[in-house]
Amino acid sequence: MSFSPLIRQLVEALRGLPGVGQKTAQRMALHLLERDRSGGLRLSEALSRAMQHVGYCQQCRTLSEDPVCALCADPRRDDQLLCVVQSPVDVFAVEQTGFRGRYFVLKGHLSPLDGLGPEAIGIPELLARIGEGGFAEVILATNPTVEGEATAHYIAQTLADRDIVISRIAHGVPLGGELELVDGGTLAHALAGRKPISLR
Amino acid sequence: MSFSPLIRQLVEALRGLPGVGQKTAQRMALHLLERDRSGGLRLSEALSRAMQHVGYCQQCRTLSEDPVCALCADPRRDDQLLCVVQSPVDVFAVEQTGFRGRYFVLKGHLSPLDGLGPEAIGIPELLARIGEGGFAEVILATNPTVEGEATAHYIAQTLADRDIVISRIAHGVPLGGELELVDGGTLAHALAGRKPISLR
Repeated sequence: MSFSPLIRQLVEALRGLPGVGQKTAQRMALHLLERDRSGGLRLSEALSRAMQHVGYCQQCRTLSEDPVCALCADPRRDDQLLCVVQSPVDVFAVEQTGFRGRYFVLKGHLSPLDGLGPEAIGIPELLARIGEGGFAEVILATNPTVEGEATAHYIAQTLADRDIVISRIAHGVPLGGELELVDGGTLAHALAGRKPISLR
Repeated sequence: MSFSPLIRQLVEALRGLPGVGQKTAQRMALHLLERDRSGGLRLSEALSRAMQHVGYCQQCRTLSEDPVCALCADPRRDDQLLCVVQSPVDVFAVEQTGFRGRYFVLKGHLSPLDGLGPEAIGIPELLARIGEGGFAEVILATNPTVEGEATAHYIAQTLADRDIVISRIAHGVPLGGELELVDGGTLAHALAGRKPISLR
């Protein structure tokens, strides 16, 4: 014996969310059923609309319900700068730094062992976008992981013969925290990438 | 600038789930959009059906889409035993112990400061259910919290003049773990409630 079929199906569907196990899913289902039915219906609506209508921006390939997303459609942004990231959530993160150039979103990183080559992550589309022109610099902002580095390196090589500055986001110690807690690799990068302090 | 409106609404709606903050909601939304659209649609469906069709069982007041839930409709269960719990999820928990009597689900516990008196949590309906008859014993299985104890005590007093055994689930040390980690109150209950060991 357990919950009734509709509740069981709801718990099962909630378990599809990342990080949600059986107990959490039960708590969510009962919370919505006992205390927040309108919130549950709102979530159902939002899910169904987003799953059906959100596609990818034709220019930057981020998630968007419009053919061209708001960022790409904005005429006030810097058309000379292109920032390449590996997921839509990274656009959000870079955007919060005050960056005001253009974006291109890859579908993850290169992973030959999983069969993810340049075509699978959208490198041809990136080259086409760069070919359309006007960029003076392409900033590679893939994740600072082994795969992200390899992906950035591959793109840099592919673009080597074009007359464009290719840059990679800086590695170094993050703000806040203590030096002794920073891993050796990061600290080595921070030392190698040191900059003279200009006092005027 | 941030996500497009549909994604923003989805993130907002996901934040309505208990224990889900902004970052988790973003991760859930992007996971569904990028990797599991059919799972998202299934969740939308399950939510909408559950929110609209799940009501309360007329007999035990647990959540159920049928007027009488499967547990109450089952003729093989013990009609002499009634287990009173304070939430539908507790039915699930007690059911897993192998208990095979009947249930009654209160709407939480008494909480006079929050304006939750006997009527608000369904004590009149409980008395009516007991009045319908046949029960030899009523087991009070409200939570072992101050409020749960008070609620159990109140129900016991209300039923004092009826010819029914009123019992409370035992307090004591939980199985597993170590004595030194058990709080003093629980250990005191465990000592006071000690039982002779019968060797045959």
